[in-house]
Amino acid sequence: MGIIVQKFGGTSVADPQKIHNAARAVIKERENGNDVVVVVSAMGHTTDYLIKLAKEVTSMPDSREMDMLLSTGEQVSIALLTMAIQAKGYKAISMNGQQVGIITENIHSKARIVDIKTDKLKKHLDDGNIIVVAGFQGVTPEGEITTLGRGGSDTSAVAIAAALEAERCDIYTDVEGVYATDPRIVPNVQRADVISYEEMLELARVGANVLHPRSVETAKQFNVPLRVRSSFKLDDCGTLIIGVENMEIYKPVAGIAADTSQVRILLSNLPDIPGTAAELFGALAKNNISVDMIIQSLASNGKNSIAFTVDADDLDSTLKILEDEKSVIKADEILTDKDIAKVSIVGAGMVDRPGIAADMFRALAEKNINIKMISTSEIKISCLVDKADSKEAIKALCKEFDLESQEIAVVKGDLPNL
Amino acid sequence: MGIIVQKFGGTSVADPQKIHNAARAVIKERENGNDVVVVVSAMGHTTDYLIKLAKEVTSMPDSREMDMLLSTGEQVSIALLTMAIQAKGYKAISMNGQQVGIITENIHSKARIVDIKTDKLKKHLDDGNIIVVAGFQGVTPEGEITTLGRGGSDTSAVAIAAALEAERCDIYTDVEGVYATDPRIVPNVQRADVISYEEMLELARVGANVLHPRSVETAKQFNVPLRVRSSFKLDDCGTLIIGVENMEIYKPVAGIAADTSQVRILLSNLPDIPGTAAELFGALAKNNISVDMIIQSLASNGKNSIAFTVDADDLDSTLKILEDEKSVIKADEILTDKDIAKVSIVGAGMVDRPGIAADMFRALAEKNINIKMISTSEIKISCLVDKADSKEAIKALCKEFDLESQEIAVVKGDLPNL
Repeated sequence: MGIIVQKFGGTSVADPQKIHNAARAVIKERENGNDVVVVVSAMGHTTDYLIKLAKEVTSMPDSREMDMLLSTGEQVSIALLTMAIQAKGYKAISMNGQQVGIITENIHSKARIVDIKTDKLKKHLDDGNIIVVAGFQGVTPEGEITTLGRGGSDTSAVAIAAALEAERCDIYTDVEGVYATDPRIVPNVQRADVISYEEMLELARVGANVLHPRSVETAKQFNVPLRVRSSFKLDDCGTLIIGVENMEIYKPVAGIAADTSQVRILLSNLPDIPGTAAELFGALAKNNISVDMIIQSLASNGKNSIAFTVDADDLDSTLKILEDEKSVIKADEILTDKDIAKVSIVGAGMVDRPGIAADMFRALAEKNINIKMISTSEIKISCLVDKADSKEAIKALCKEFDLESQEIAVVKGDLPNL
Repeated sequence: MGIIVQKFGGTSVADPQKIHNAARAVIKERENGNDVVVVVSAMGHTTDYLIKLAKEVTSMPDSREMDMLLSTGEQVSIALLTMAIQAKGYKAISMNGQQVGIITENIHSKARIVDIKTDKLKKHLDDGNIIVVAGFQGVTPEGEITTLGRGGSDTSAVAIAAALEAERCDIYTDVEGVYATDPRIVPNVQRADVISYEEMLELARVGANVLHPRSVETAKQFNVPLRVRSSFKLDDCGTLIIGVENMEIYKPVAGIAADTSQVRILLSNLPDIPGTAAELFGALAKNNISVDMIIQSLASNGKNSIAFTVDADDLDSTLKILEDEKSVIKADEILTDKDIAKVSIVGAGMVDRPGIAADMFRALAEKNINIKMISTSEIKISCLVDKADSKEAIKALCKEFDLESQEIAVVKGDLPNL
C-alpha cells in the first residue's frame, strides 16, 4: 500500500468516453490497494481553442491573463474525471493548483514549481478519496495563477509524486512505452522495459519527445520511478524509467533519434589568427544563439575552416551576425546547408565500451552514408548526415545495436515518438 | 470620482467582438473619472455547454464538481475582457472569486454570499487598475469553489458594489432598460427612467425577469443604486432603480406583467365544516406546494367552494394529495383550469390611491374580460383572467395607466422583458 500518482494527457481525456476510460485506469490502481492521486491535462484541443480565442481578442495577450485563461482547461478536466470516478462508485475529489498549493515562481506562462503543499492532499487521501489534480498550473505565494509551460502536466505529476513520496508516477499516453526509435521509421523497433533518466534526457535533447525533459529532470532529482504506459492497454506496464544506478543490466545503446531542426554553416578559408573562433562564438552567444556541433579544421594552405550547427530558427540572425562581424571574421565564403539531420545513439552502457563509436561509423559507412560532423558526450554519439539519409541511418543503427524485435509497435494518435 | 461597478451578462461577452464592445463601455466609465470594477458572466452558451458535457459523463453529477466545472466559464470571460481593455491601452487585471475573496456559505450550486473581502480590490484600484471580476462564483472559508445559482452574476455585482460602497451598479444587458410591460405585447410601452426596488421585486414575483430578485433584494438591503442599461447604446442611461424613499415622483402604476405558469383548481360543494381549508392547505404546504391565490365562497345551499392556484409543475402532485385526502376534503367535483393568466399591476404609488383597483377592474370590464380571482398586496393588484385574454388585458391596462409612449421599444436577443 503506497501512493501512486497517475497522469493523463489531453488525448487521454479528450471526450466523455476517454474520460471514462481514464477513470477505469484510476480505479484499477485503487483496487490494487494503493492511494491514488491523478493529474490531468486539458481535454484534447481545449488549450489550442483558448489560445485562438485570446488571439481573436488581441494579438499580444498579457501573459498573466493567458495563465488565467488557460488554467481553466485543466479545471474542466478534473471536474469531469472526478464525476466519472464517482459515477463508478468511488470517493473522489478534484483540486485545482490553487487549492492544492502548487507554489511556483512569480513568472507567467513558464513558471517553475518551488513547493507543493501536502497537507490538504494528505487529508483528502486519509478521508479515502481519489484526488484529481489540475496539471500545468500553479499559484504564486501571492495567489496569482501561473502555468508551467510545455510539458507542464508531466512536471506537475512528477513533482506531486516527489512531494508525497509516491511509489511511482505513471504517465498514461497513447503510446505503449518508450521505443528505441520512432516506430514510424522502424515498425518492429524494440520497446524498452527499463530505461534510465539519463538516457531519456539525452534522447529528449536529440529530438525524441515522449516526455518533456523537465519532468524527467525532476524525477531524476527526487528519484521518482516513472512509467510511460498506454491509456488503452491497462495490463501493459509500458516502460519504467529509473536512475541508472538502480539498473541491473542495460544495453550499450538504449535509443536512437534524428533531429532535423538544425542547419549547418560553413566558413571557409579563414585566416589562422588566434581569437577568430572566440570572436565568432562570443558574438553568437551574446545574441542567445545556441551552437550545437562545431568542427574547426586547418587546411594545407594554412587557412582554417569552421563548420557549426544552429537551430534553423536562428539561421537568419546568425547570418546577420556574420555579416556584422565580417571585419573580424574574414571568411572567403559562407555556406549554409539546411538538408541535414543529426542522428544520435544514446546509451548509459556505452560509458565502459569504447568500441561503440567505431561500430556506429562502420554501420553508416556500410550504407554509404557520409558523416559530415561528429559530436559525443558521455552517453551519446551524434553524427551529422544528409537529411535524405536519416531514416536509412536509423534503420541501420537499429539493426547494428540489436534494437529490433519480433513485434510491430502500436502507435495511436498524434503524439510524437522516439 | 467614485467607484462604479459594471456587470456584463453572457450575451454581452458572447464573442470577441462583443467583448471589445463591453471593453468600450468600461473605458467610457473610466474616462468619466471613476474607478471601475467589472463583473462578468460566462460567454454566451458556455454554461449550457459545460452542463451538457457533465451530463455526458454522468446523469447525476456531484454539485461540488459541477461548481468546479461551471466556475471556469466566468474565468475565461474575465481573462478575455481584461485582454481587450489592455489592448485599448488601459491598465486592467482579472480576479476570480477565490482571488477576490467572495466568501459564501458552504453550499454548492446555490450558495449565498456571506462576505466580500475588499483589501485586494482596493489595492488594485489604488494601483490604477480596472478590475474584472468573475461573477456567479465564490469560495468557502475552507477554499471550496461555490456558485451562486440563478441570477448569480447580478448578485455578485451588487454585493461587490455594496462592499466597496460604490456610487452605482450598472447592469449591462441587451434591453435598454426596464419597460412598464413586455414590449413584444405593447411595442410602444414606456421605459421607466426610475423605478423602486420594491416595484422591481413585485414585478419579478409576478413574471417579469429583467433582474433576478436576489440581486434587487441585495441592492435594496445595502441601498446600492442600480442601473439597467444597454451594452449597445452607451449614451443611454437606461433605468435607475433606487429606494422608494429616494424617489421624488412616481406613477401610481410602474409596471404590468402576466404570469401564465399557474393553474387554477376548483373544489365545489365542500361541506361547510370548520377546518376543511386548514386541512387542505396544510397538506399542500407539507408537500412544499406553494399556493398563490385563494378564494373561498359560501353558496346558498350552505356548501363551500374553494378555488386556488398553484404552479403548473405542481398540478399532478396537488391532484394526488386531493385524492389522498378525499376522506376529509369531501368535494363533489374537482375542476382544473390550465388556460389562465395572472395579470398584475405594480406600483409604489398605489399605496395612497384607493381608486387604482377600481380603475383596473373597470378597464378590464370595458374589454369584456372576465376576472376569475383577485389578490392584492400593498403595491400590487393581480387579476386572474383567461389566458386568451391576457395580451388584451395588458394592452388595456397600459392605456388606462398611461404607460404608452411615442417610441417603439428596442428588444434584442433572447432576454425576456417585463
